[in-house]
Amino acid sequence: MSVANRLSINFDRLKSNINAISQIGRSQDHGIYRQAFTENDLQARGWLSQKMEEAGLHIEVDGAANIHGYLGDRSKPSVVVGSHIDSVPAAGPLDGTLGVLTGLECLQRIKEEGLELGYPLELVSFSDEEGRFGGLLGSQSFVGDINPQRIYNSRDLNGVSLVDAMKACGYDAIQALDARRNPRSVKSYLELHIEQGPVLDSLDVPIGVVSHITGLFKWSIRLIGRPDHAGTTPMPMRADALAGLAEFSMEIPRVLEENGTERSVATIGKVDLFPGTANTVPGKVEFSLDCRDTDSKILQDLMDAFRKALSAIARRRDLMFEFDVLSEVDPVACDDSIQAIIRKASESVGCNHHSMPSGAAHDAQIVARIAPVGMIFVPSKAGRSHSSAEWTDWEDIETGANVALQSLLQMAEARI
Amino acid sequence: MSVANRLSINFDRLKSNINAISQIGRSQDHGIYRQAFTENDLQARGWLSQKMEEAGLHIEVDGAANIHGYLGDRSKPSVVVGSHIDSVPAAGPLDGTLGVLTGLECLQRIKEEGLELGYPLELVSFSDEEGRFGGLLGSQSFVGDINPQRIYNSRDLNGVSLVDAMKACGYDAIQALDARRNPRSVKSYLELHIEQGPVLDSLDVPIGVVSHITGLFKWSIRLIGRPDHAGTTPMPMRADALAGLAEFSMEIPRVLEENGTERSVATIGKVDLFPGTANTVPGKVEFSLDCRDTDSKILQDLMDAFRKALSAIARRRDLMFEFDVLSEVDPVACDDSIQAIIRKASESVGCNHHSMPSGAAHDAQIVARIAPVGMIFVPSKAGRSHSSAEWTDWEDIETGANVALQSLLQMAEARI
Repeated sequence: MSVANRLSINFDRLKSNINAISQIGRSQDHGIYRQAFTENDLQARGWLSQKMEEAGLHIEVDGAANIHGYLGDRSKPSVVVGSHIDSVPAAGPLDGTLGVLTGLECLQRIKEEGLELGYPLELVSFSDEEGRFGGLLGSQSFVGDINPQRIYNSRDLNGVSLVDAMKACGYDAIQALDARRNPRSVKSYLELHIEQGPVLDSLDVPIGVVSHITGLFKWSIRLIGRPDHAGTTPMPMRADALAGLAEFSMEIPRVLEENGTERSVATIGKVDLFPGTANTVPGKVEFSLDCRDTDSKILQDLMDAFRKALSAIARRRDLMFEFDVLSEVDPVACDDSIQAIIRKASESVGCNHHSMPSGAAHDAQIVARIAPVGMIFVPSKAGRSHSSAEWTDWEDIETGANVALQSLLQMAEARI
Repeated sequence: MSVANRLSINFDRLKSNINAISQIGRSQDHGIYRQAFTENDLQARGWLSQKMEEAGLHIEVDGAANIHGYLGDRSKPSVVVGSHIDSVPAAGPLDGTLGVLTGLECLQRIKEEGLELGYPLELVSFSDEEGRFGGLLGSQSFVGDINPQRIYNSRDLNGVSLVDAMKACGYDAIQALDARRNPRSVKSYLELHIEQGPVLDSLDVPIGVVSHITGLFKWSIRLIGRPDHAGTTPMPMRADALAGLAEFSMEIPRVLEENGTERSVATIGKVDLFPGTANTVPGKVEFSLDCRDTDSKILQDLMDAFRKALSAIARRRDLMFEFDVLSEVDPVACDDSIQAIIRKASESVGCNHHSMPSGAAHDAQIVARIAPVGMIFVPSKAGRSHSSAEWTDWEDIETGANVALQSLLQMAEARI
C-alpha cells in the first residue's frame, strides 16, 4: 500500500471544525442564518481565514470576496477544491460548508505530510452560492460570467443592493469584475457536497460519483378562464382555470415517461389562484413548472411536450394559455477521468459508490465552463436539506473526506 | 282583463330610482361600496326611507336596523316583499337593491290605485345580507335566529365590531334580539333577485321561477406529504401534495355524475401550497371545497363520495388527509303555490319562465323558516355579479317588476 493510500484525514479536527462553524449564525429555531454578506457570513469568513492560516495555506481574497488558500508551486495551474459557506435562511450545517471544510482538511493533511505535488492545490470558498443576490455569484465571477449591470442591479428580497451589502462588509462590489481567473491557471475542480436528495440514503451507499449536473427550464404558466359564482354556474358552463392546472399536473408523469428518462423530474411548486375565494370558480391560475434532466436534447423534447399538453388542455377547457421562461440552464457533464479517479479513490478506502446526476445547482457547474470538474456526494439523511433537519452521519462524512483526499492526491499528481 | 291584470309598474320611476341609488357608494373604479353599517349604507338607508315615505308607506325600523314599510290593515299577517341594499365591495348596482326597489314600486303603484287588499303588504330591506358581519344578519334576526354571542362576537375583516359599526350609525346592536317577528304576523315572502348566474341569459328567458335555494357544504381540506427538493428527488420518491389535489380535482366530475344531479356543483376556489416555492415539491396543500345541491340526501351522498375519493387518493399517494367543515346549510324549497302564482303572473304579462334552483344564498332561505317563500329571478348578463359588470337589461327589469306586481296582488288577495 502506498503512502498516499495510507494517508487519511484527521477526523477529530474535521468534526471539531464542522461543529465550530455551525455555531456561527445559528438561531433560536436551530436553523443557521449565514446569508451572503451578512454579519454572520462575515464572522464565518473570519473564522475560515484563521483556520486556513493555521493550516499553512497562502490566503488571497479576490474581487468577488471568494477566499482562496494555496498550497504548492503556483507557477503551474491549480487543482481547485471548494464550495461555499454562505447559507439559505434557516439552513442546516452542511450544505456547501462541508465541501469547504473537507477541502481544508485535505490540504492541511497534505501540508502536514509534506507531500510533493505535481500541481498546486487551491482551496476556494465561493461567495453567495445560495442566492441572496441571485446565487453562484462567486463562481460566476471566478469564470468571468459577470458584468457591471449584474453587479449594480442585484438586490436581496428586502431591497438591499449587492453594492451596499458588500460595502458594509468592507468589499467593493465592482471589483467582482477583477475576480475572473485565466482558465489556464485552473487545472481541474473538485467539489464534495451533501446530496440534498434521498437516493444515497435509500441505497445505503456512502459515495455518489456525480456524472452530470442537471440542466433545467423554469416556466411561469398562466391559464385564464372565467371567474364565475360557485353556486350559480352549472358545471358545463364553467371555464375553470384550476381544473386546467389539475389536468396538466396529472399529465406530468405521462410526459416524463414518453419523452424523458428515469432522471427526468418536473415539479409544480408554486400556485396562485385568482380570485382565490371559496365561492368563486377560479378565473385564473398562475403556476411554476420546474423541469430537469441531464441531457439538453431531452430537455428540449420535454419543453415541446409540455407546451403541447398545455395547449391541448387550454383548447379543450376554453382557457387561455400563456407562459414565460424564467430560466434555462444547460446540463453539465462531469469530467470522465475525474469520475474514474473518484471511483478508484472510493475503492481504495473500501467503500461502495453510485453514479448519479446532481439535481441541484452547484458552483461546480459554473467552474465547468473553464476547467474539468468532478463532484463527490455524501448521503443526506432522508434527503433533507435547506432545513435544520439536514444531516449526514459522521461516518459518511469521514468516508467522503477520505475519498476527497485520495482523489485530490491523484488530481494533483502527488509524488508518493 | 281585470284591473289587476292591466295594472303595471311605473317603469320610468323605477329606472330613475335604480339610477339614483346606484350613485350612493359608487367609487372611482365604478364599483359600488355600500357594505352594511358604513356611511354609504347609512346614506342609502336615508334615501330609501324618504322614497318609502313619498310612496305613502308606514315606516318602521326594527332592532336589527331592517327597514319595514307597511301598506294596508296590519291586524292581519303581512305579505312581505324585499331583499337588501347593502353590497359587497366593488359591487354592481342590482344585487339585492333591485328586489327592494321593485318591491317599493309595486307597493307604490298599489297604493296609487287604492286597491283593497286581503292582507297587508310589507316592504323590507334587510341588514347586512352580504356579510360584512357574517351575512344574512337582518333576516336571521327577523326569524329569531340570533343570540347575544353572535352580536357581540361579529367583526368585519378589519376587526371592527358589529356593535361599534351599528353604534356609529345610531343603532344599538343588542336590540337585534328584539327584531324577531311572530311567525303568525308573516303570511308569505317574495323576493325578486338577479340570477347571478348565466342560465337565464343563455336561455334568453326573462323570468326564473326559483324551485329551491341550494344547500351547501364547505370544507377546508389539507393533504400533507413531504416537502422535497425539486431537483434532487426522483419522481417515484415524492409525496407531492399538489399531485393529490390535482387527482381530486379531476375526480369531481365523476363524483357529481355518480352521486349528484345536473343541479349539483362543486368548486375548488382557494388553494394554498406550502412551502410554495418553484424548486420545492409541495409538502402540503390546503384547499376549499364548496359543494351545492337542492336535496339534503344528495348532499349527504356527495359528502360521503368526496370523503372516499380523498381517502383513496391520500392512501395511494402517501399523503395525510384532514378536513374541517366550515359550513353546512340545508337546502330550502320554495313554496309550490307561490311558484304557481309566479308562473301564472309571468303568463299574464306574456313572458316565458324557467324553473330553476338558486345556487346563491338569499334572505328568502332564512325567511323560509317562518313562512312560505317565493323567488323571482331576472337574467344576469353573462352571469356576472359581485362586479361592476353586473347588469340586467332594462326590458328584463321591467318584465320582472311586473311579474312581481302581479304575484303580490295574488299573494295579498287584492280585490280587483
